[in-house]
Amino acid sequence: MEVMQVLHMNNGEGETSYAKNSNIQRKIISATNSRLKEAVISILCKNKKIPESIGIADLGCSSGPNTLMVVTEVINIMDATCRKSGSSLPELRISLNDLPGNDFNDLFRSLPEFYRKVKEEKGSENCYVAGVPGSFYGRLFPLKSMHFFHSSSSLHWLSQVPLGLGTEARTALNKGKLYISNTSPSEVITKYMSQFQNDFSLFLQSRSPEMVPGGRMLLSLMGRSSIDPTAEDGCYYQWELLAHALSILVSKGLVEEEKVDSFNAPYYAPCPEEVTIAVEKEGSFVINRLEAFEVEWDASISLNSTLCDSDDKNGQLCMKSASSGQQVAKTIRAVVESMVGSHFGNEIMDDLFKVYSDLVDDYIYKNRAVYINLVVSLTRKG
Amino acid sequence: MEVMQVLHMNNGEGETSYAKNSNIQRKIISATNSRLKEAVISILCKNKKIPESIGIADLGCSSGPNTLMVVTEVINIMDATCRKSGSSLPELRISLNDLPGNDFNDLFRSLPEFYRKVKEEKGSENCYVAGVPGSFYGRLFPLKSMHFFHSSSSLHWLSQVPLGLGTEARTALNKGKLYISNTSPSEVITKYMSQFQNDFSLFLQSRSPEMVPGGRMLLSLMGRSSIDPTAEDGCYYQWELLAHALSILVSKGLVEEEKVDSFNAPYYAPCPEEVTIAVEKEGSFVINRLEAFEVEWDASISLNSTLCDSDDKNGQLCMKSASSGQQVAKTIRAVVESMVGSHFGNEIMDDLFKVYSDLVDDYIYKNRAVYINLVVSLTRKG
Repeated sequence: MEVMQVLHMNNGEGETSYAKNSNIQRKIISATNSRLKEAVISILCKNKKIPESIGIADLGCSSGPNTLMVVTEVINIMDATCRKSGSSLPELRISLNDLPGNDFNDLFRSLPEFYRKVKEEKGSENCYVAGVPGSFYGRLFPLKSMHFFHSSSSLHWLSQVPLGLGTEARTALNKGKLYISNTSPSEVITKYMSQFQNDFSLFLQSRSPEMVPGGRMLLSLMGRSSIDPTAEDGCYYQWELLAHALSILVSKGLVEEEKVDSFNAPYYAPCPEEVTIAVEKEGSFVINRLEAFEVEWDASISLNSTLCDSDDKNGQLCMKSASSGQQVAKTIRAVVESMVGSHFGNEIMDDLFKVYSDLVDDYIYKNRAVYINLVVSLTRKG
Repeated sequence: MEVMQVLHMNNGEGETSYAKNSNIQRKIISATNSRLKEAVISILCKNKKIPESIGIADLGCSSGPNTLMVVTEVINIMDATCRKSGSSLPELRISLNDLPGNDFNDLFRSLPEFYRKVKEEKGSENCYVAGVPGSFYGRLFPLKSMHFFHSSSSLHWLSQVPLGLGTEARTALNKGKLYISNTSPSEVITKYMSQFQNDFSLFLQSRSPEMVPGGRMLLSLMGRSSIDPTAEDGCYYQWELLAHALSILVSKGLVEEEKVDSFNAPYYAPCPEEVTIAVEKEGSFVINRLEAFEVEWDASISLNSTLCDSDDKNGQLCMKSASSGQQVAKTIRAVVESMVGSHFGNEIMDDLFKVYSDLVDDYIYKNRAVYINLVVSLTRKG
């Protein structure tokens, strides 16, 4: 499976689109806002003189309402900082990166409005946005052109399914599972761990020459708190439930068992120690902060209750239109459908995510269902 | 009519797509190849030292087989020149620009193959392609970042329908016509001429700060040889026939007459003198060359006969599967459908281009049907 060909968030603006189902990712971006501020201010203030031109890239930007959110926030922070020091906004060279299958058309159509706002609110016409299609596990930008890299909810995607676990493998090592599970043989776990080390190193190696010395990088990705990748702390249970849903479709004769055995996700949720190892080994970056935080599986829970605070004067709880399972299923479907569909066939997607949504409802009823997210703030040495 | 919203080549790869119907534009690119070579070599050799990093942009790049053709040719020329001087290819920062409605998704999907070829054929991994959506009648790139601008078959599109000739006008000044015609009142002609002067100046003003001193620009666009824009030398007759086709649909009750009266194309085919005036007035560029050349309306005529030379050993003429009128109608439809359809309704497009194709057949039978293209090669002063 060529990850570059099959992995992209669901295009367009329909019911199953990523644009309509990316609340979780938005919450994660919001949760890291204070770290974003810290990093951006440091770029501006590092040399006591604001650079004349600043290169900023959002890696794995996707499309939809979240895409320009980070960039807008970066501009807000820069604008406030510049105003305080009495200077005007520098030239901003903004690159939006994702794989070539991303819906850049949708993203580009929102740019005229974005430019209009930057001009109106900040008085700046000095902002240049470009789309850069390609894998961040390789070079994307010219030498020393970047001051700030941001990436949210993207780096848990590996460059490929670990060798020996893809569809090309002769024997299925991870029967019935889609990712590391507590029944997976240790070989599976090792392969995943080593693929993450290789990929994350390659990511850092690729960014290193692209950055100016002292440049900053803020990355957030799915992770786990325990060193043991099979400990149930939320990092792999989404895949466990999806594997369970598939096994139900197998029992109904809708999916071949071998299809499940031969699929493993190009995904890895590392623990903080693994991130630290990769950074130290690569050597060009210093970790300023590395933190973990929790996000509810169902983003609509807290989003709805926030809305209720202001809208519902009686203090009653809002009725949600969909169950948590349905909400979670929509979120996951928008992210994995391109990839899962290309392996199992798009015709089973409705059935699969219906069964999955029931399993998630059941799981959330019995368990504390949170994702662990890692956020790591780095500085380019030099 | 907001040109930025309604003007784009037909998307995708279907029967009426620009990708499948852009032979004319390809011929024009090929015809200017010697000028491209001249310009690119001059960038490399200007300072007797090849720059370490070179910025190149194709403005109005569209999508389809032509899009990466110019960029590929630029790389070929650079590679050959570098090899001669024993140096390796510099870092190439390539920007592909078009309006936000352009099919960048289609374009981006072809990039992995493009990168593979550059690596395989030139041994270079130092090439970075970005998509830059926006109007070239305004700033698109950072200060002094560009060494070479190319634009083919784009600059005859104005930024807007000249004021007083758009759908907002209270009286229809150009009844029954879509562009300057020999029955157009002089007011119409003046408005078009002045819109071109404003737009072309704005284009030059926008590029000027983006270029390094000595940077080069190669532009080709539809034009005319005569100073009189109503002289029948091929520059406006396409619009004349399209107006005629619409009048036939009016007589059949398929189109309202007022719709035709209120539409004027945001298009202008200048004569060489007008280009010279705009360049001299703006002041940052020197014209190295300004030439006019002819291209047959029906690109398939010479393309087919070229193919025949090698394929048909008996020397017989190939039978074309479609008439010239049909070929020309497809080419024009792929370019103007987004705009014409948004004004007249997409439901009449099939009828319109059927009638149009008959009119073109008739015209080609009786006349020498050629486009005049201008090609202008410029150097940034300083």
